[in-house]
Amino acid sequence: MKKVAIVMGSDSDLPVVMPAVDRLKGFGIPVEVRVMSAHRTPAIACGFAADARRGGFGVIIAAAGKAAHLAGVLAAHTTLPVIGLPVKSSTLDGLDALLSTVQMPSGIPVATVAIDGADNAGILAAQILAVSDGSLADKLDAFKRDMEAAVVEKDLKLTQELNK
Amino acid sequence: MKKVAIVMGSDSDLPVVMPAVDRLKGFGIPVEVRVMSAHRTPAIACGFAADARRGGFGVIIAAAGKAAHLAGVLAAHTTLPVIGLPVKSSTLDGLDALLSTVQMPSGIPVATVAIDGADNAGILAAQILAVSDGSLADKLDAFKRDMEAAVVEKDLKLTQELNK
Amino acid sequence: MKKVAIVMGSDSDLPVVMPAVDRLKGFGIPVEVRVMSAHRTPAIACGFAADARRGGFGVIIAAAGKAAHLAGVLAAHTTLPVIGLPVKSSTLDGLDALLSTVQMPSGIPVATVAIDGADNAGILAAQILAVSDGSLADKLDAFKRDMEAAVVEKDLKLTQELNK
Amino acid sequence: MKKVAIVMGSDSDLPVVMPAVDRLKGFGIPVEVRVMSAHRTPAIACGFAADARRGGFGVIIAAAGKAAHLAGVLAAHTTLPVIGLPVKSSTLDGLDALLSTVQMPSGIPVATVAIDGADNAGILAAQILAVSDGSLADKLDAFKRDMEAAVVEKDLKLTQELNK
Amino acid sequence: MKKVAIVMGSDSDLPVVMPAVDRLKGFGIPVEVRVMSAHRTPAIACGFAADARRGGFGVIIAAAGKAAHLAGVLAAHTTLPVIGLPVKSSTLDGLDALLSTVQMPSGIPVATVAIDGADNAGILAAQILAVSDGSLADKLDAFKRDMEAAVVEKDLKLTQELNK
Amino acid sequence: MKKVAIVMGSDSDLPVVMPAVDRLKGFGIPVEVRVMSAHRTPAIACGFAADARRGGFGVIIAAAGKAAHLAGVLAAHTTLPVIGLPVKSSTLDGLDALLSTVQMPSGIPVATVAIDGADNAGILAAQILAVSDGSLADKLDAFKRDMEAAVVEKDLKLTQELNK
Amino acid sequence: MKKVAIVMGSDSDLPVVMPAVDRLKGFGIPVEVRVMSAHRTPAIACGFAADARRGGFGVIIAAAGKAAHLAGVLAAHTTLPVIGLPVKSSTLDGLDALLSTVQMPSGIPVATVAIDGADNAGILAAQILAVSDGSLADKLDAFKRDMEAAVVEKDLKLTQELNK
Amino acid sequence: MKKVAIVMGSDSDLPVVMPAVDRLKGFGIPVEVRVMSAHRTPAIACGFAADARRGGFGVIIAAAGKAAHLAGVLAAHTTLPVIGLPVKSSTLDGLDALLSTVQMPSGIPVATVAIDGADNAGILAAQILAVSDGSLADKLDAFKRDMEAAVVEKDLKLTQELNK
Repeated sequence: MKKVAIVMGSDSDLPVVMPAVDRLKGFGIPVEVRVMSAHRTPAIACGFAADARRGGFGVIIAAAGKAAHLAGVLAAHTTLPVIGLPVKSSTLDGLDALLSTVQMPSGIPVATVAIDGADNAGILAAQILAVSDGSLADKLDAFKRDMEAAVVEKDLKLTQELNK
Repeated sequence: MKKVAIVMGSDSDLPVVMPAVDRLKGFGIPVEVRVMSAHRTPAIACGFAADARRGGFGVIIAAAGKAAHLAGVLAAHTTLPVIGLPVKSSTLDGLDALLSTVQMPSGIPVATVAIDGADNAGILAAQILAVSDGSLADKLDAFKRDMEAAVVEKDLKLTQELNK
Repeated sequence: MKKVAIVMGSDSDLPVVMPAVDRLKGFGIPVEVRVMSAHRTPAIACGFAADARRGGFGVIIAAAGKAAHLAGVLAAHTTLPVIGLPVKSSTLDGLDALLSTVQMPSGIPVATVAIDGADNAGILAAQILAVSDGSLADKLDAFKRDMEAAVVEKDLKLTQELNK
Repeated sequence: MKKVAIVMGSDSDLPVVMPAVDRLKGFGIPVEVRVMSAHRTPAIACGFAADARRGGFGVIIAAAGKAAHLAGVLAAHTTLPVIGLPVKSSTLDGLDALLSTVQMPSGIPVATVAIDGADNAGILAAQILAVSDGSLADKLDAFKRDMEAAVVEKDLKLTQELNK
Repeated sequence: MKKVAIVMGSDSDLPVVMPAVDRLKGFGIPVEVRVMSAHRTPAIACGFAADARRGGFGVIIAAAGKAAHLAGVLAAHTTLPVIGLPVKSSTLDGLDALLSTVQMPSGIPVATVAIDGADNAGILAAQILAVSDGSLADKLDAFKRDMEAAVVEKDLKLTQELNK
Repeated sequence: MKKVAIVMGSDSDLPVVMPAVDRLKGFGIPVEVRVMSAHRTPAIACGFAADARRGGFGVIIAAAGKAAHLAGVLAAHTTLPVIGLPVKSSTLDGLDALLSTVQMPSGIPVATVAIDGADNAGILAAQILAVSDGSLADKLDAFKRDMEAAVVEKDLKLTQELNK
Repeated sequence: MKKVAIVMGSDSDLPVVMPAVDRLKGFGIPVEVRVMSAHRTPAIACGFAADARRGGFGVIIAAAGKAAHLAGVLAAHTTLPVIGLPVKSSTLDGLDALLSTVQMPSGIPVATVAIDGADNAGILAAQILAVSDGSLADKLDAFKRDMEAAVVEKDLKLTQELNK
Repeated sequence: MKKVAIVMGSDSDLPVVMPAVDRLKGFGIPVEVRVMSAHRTPAIACGFAADARRGGFGVIIAAAGKAAHLAGVLAAHTTLPVIGLPVKSSTLDGLDALLSTVQMPSGIPVATVAIDGADNAGILAAQILAVSDGSLADKLDAFKRDMEAAVVEKDLKLTQELNK
């Protein structure tokens, strides 16, 4: 099975990124987590992206805050799908990272998820791999049913408590 | 080869969406273009998404403006990757559509591209299909080299004109 | 008397939603509180909205955060008035939920109140029911007079303390 | 049948407001259109709102741009539901009118629709009246089915043209 | 000497407003602090504004948050200068109150100061009264010199500590 | 009678500023219009402000776009009330000028009006002068009544046309 | 004398960039204009930046729109000062390019100027070179005096026309 | 070696500014820290800027919050490069300071860095001085390599912990 790379611009982003790691491992997808910076280690980041398909990766998730260039820079060096995960920092509430990640020019898309939305980054990576993997697609369907069941259960519990 | 569905909330979005259609056809990927609304034909939209994997689709692109719920509503009914294409309308410069598309809650990701970024939606869909299709990956690599060559050529031309 | 449904996308929104519950109960209006998600339990949510008029509901209040599609999705399945209550989440200060709720396309309105404005959602629901219910209208008038009296009293108290 | 008042802050807003007038007339609902300003004719506006229920109105629609106080000021003088229609002006793309209309303090709700969303203001007013008027509810259901049919037809037409 | 009225929409705004009270008292200007709401006690607020000039007031300061209509509503009923003080509330960081206060339509200005800028509201009121009051103008000049001296002193202290 | 200075940062702002000139002349208030830049002719601007009170001015209106420092810089050199008029430029829709003008630090207020709101800047200047000028106050009252009458007339005309 | 490089992400940005070219040539500073993309020709862009100091450049100006990564990517490969020039594109009024350019993470600064502010980018580059070049500093001083004289002249002309 | 001036509008900004001080001292660059306000001590600020080149300064860093005019006002009085450091304050998350600093009119550039980005302000000042100082350029190159090494080390550590 193809691997998913999860790259973050700074190791301080790890707590934000972990839900993606956990989600992918939960689906049995091999994950490689890396700290690489578009600005501090650009050569390493670009080289990693350029070799990623050959290295067995199917998807790259890139998490960065502020002027979040990481996803775009990686996408410039690969034709693998790159998922951009904008990270909220101490000013502007994540809007800067969101716009820097999503507003990519024609030719180099970044598949952007919500600010601090690591869980969805992981699920989206799994969905991409599942396009050609029926067994993983089944796991995603099961996950969807579990989510549904969890909401139904919460609804029941709330209804019993509140609606008397 | 798996098909790509391109769904728009209103047929007035067609000019915005066409670059995605053209790009995908250029890669030789079968495309099905549909008008379906999360709010006006919700049953059709939900049914389409629910059957999409079975129907041979690999990716769904959903284009919508304003409170752009279409991508999210489709994503609620499938585990295929759904690409959200926010469309600029007459107020708020597309910010509403961007936030409505990208800020999805945990569990239901939408792979969001730039406002009016249909070309990138098409390329991203191709990248997703290419994860398991080496021949399509080769086409994407060639496309990337062509883009590079085009910029190099423009640089040359501009340099000759301006820098004397 | 017609009932008011209060639907939230996640049970974590309950503290934000409670003022609407309390306000409606204070007016003697029957309330049914539910947890339903536009994305995780779409079939249940759509079915609920489709049956709501028949089920004796007069108004639906829908509370959701981030890409808050819930109110719009419910409104797609009913012609009852749907009140959208945008909920502030950890990023973007509620602006995403506000725009996702209010910027609905032509044909499917959502009556949007302030971010985290549950009290007003409840009052608006009561006002809607009171259009054809003189006794409820009287209660609303009394409530308005009580609000006025409370401000007058605070004004008096403050004036006495400060303006000597 | 109860009437709907459509109040605008300036007669220059008439083109923006007309879709609400037309929609309501289309449903056979009596409409009264007025120019009243929260700031230039406040006494008239407040008096109108205070007498509106007695005068046979069921809903008030208030359209205003910039620091759009009109809906809130009317709502301060009535317990009828007031629908706020934010109007885009020459700066800030309607965001000012939207926030001034929707962010009402506790106690005085305004049911806000999209910027320049007059059609939805009209439909919402009809939905409110239809809570206690089965015949009007039937018209709204028919309108919903017509919208659905129109989208289906456009989908068919587009599909035939594009997907060969 | 003419009085300054300081009106707030809710007594919870008192801590934000107090610097204006203190500043004006420091200049020896008579102040009257009131709680009046554009929405909950509109008749009282409008009546107060309408009578303010006759009652000996020279300036009105109006503090309000969210859809801050108070300053505009008071300005509708007087030709005295009305200073708008937007108050930050729990969502949107005060942007809503700022836009609702400052974006007034032609004919009814509100002299808006910074979000939570009560001190400046007080100083501006004093400046307005000082236009025709040389003695107050002298106090303002002295205040300006004191501010200057305070900065110079801080500069000296910092310079001695840091620049060795 | 005290004069009003209208200062603009660039002569290209003249069309935006003219309504203030006309309004003040309409009230019989002497006006002096100047082009002075906080950044290009700072010494002239600062000197003008410092001498303004002595020179017979009662109020300064300062119009500027983008990083609109002009009003604040003038306010730093006078204790006269300074009215800030933010001017919309080719990017950001005037939001930059609004924030640069209104968000002044404690001690140096700028009385800010709406983006491109020159008419209100003129009226506000007149209101400030009228605090100590009963005859001008009467003119402002008459102006208010005229505005009211104009709206009433438009209401009548519209009502006759539309509501048959 | 050291050269200034002016790099743009797309040749369509040339009209926006030209004022920087003209301004620098006006100061007699050698300029090299290039089209290089952070995403389409990343290797060329990175190589150019890495060699720029050796190649006789003193400053790099980078112009880009949308998710404007160009300035940051160049800054990652050089310790020369990099001036970022955010370019307004068809959506979001340049806010995306501004935030993507200015919000750089610690370690890799980009000296950002106003949206579409090419003239200032050129002047800033000249100012940087003039730190160690007294003759260029003199030219900048003369330029500043010329600007001042131009404003004074416009002020005179306007004053004569308007203030009679 | 030329000195760097670090000017802040208020001594309360010192904690935000300190990273710039430390960074510059780390590079062996002489620093002078000052408290000067564009609004409270304008004459001192303007005089300082006007004399800065003569006084041996090569770069001025100006830190200010809210309507951050300080950098622009200093830039109006010098042709030295002025670095603007927008400081986040209690409302609007620093957006006001960013726009007030960066959106300078043609003729007077301010080299703006990220909100609260003092470290980068210091590095940028060093980069500017290094244009004509090979030894400082070497230090900057070494600093860049150290940053790279630090990221590589963190990557290694994280990789060992997580990827087993």
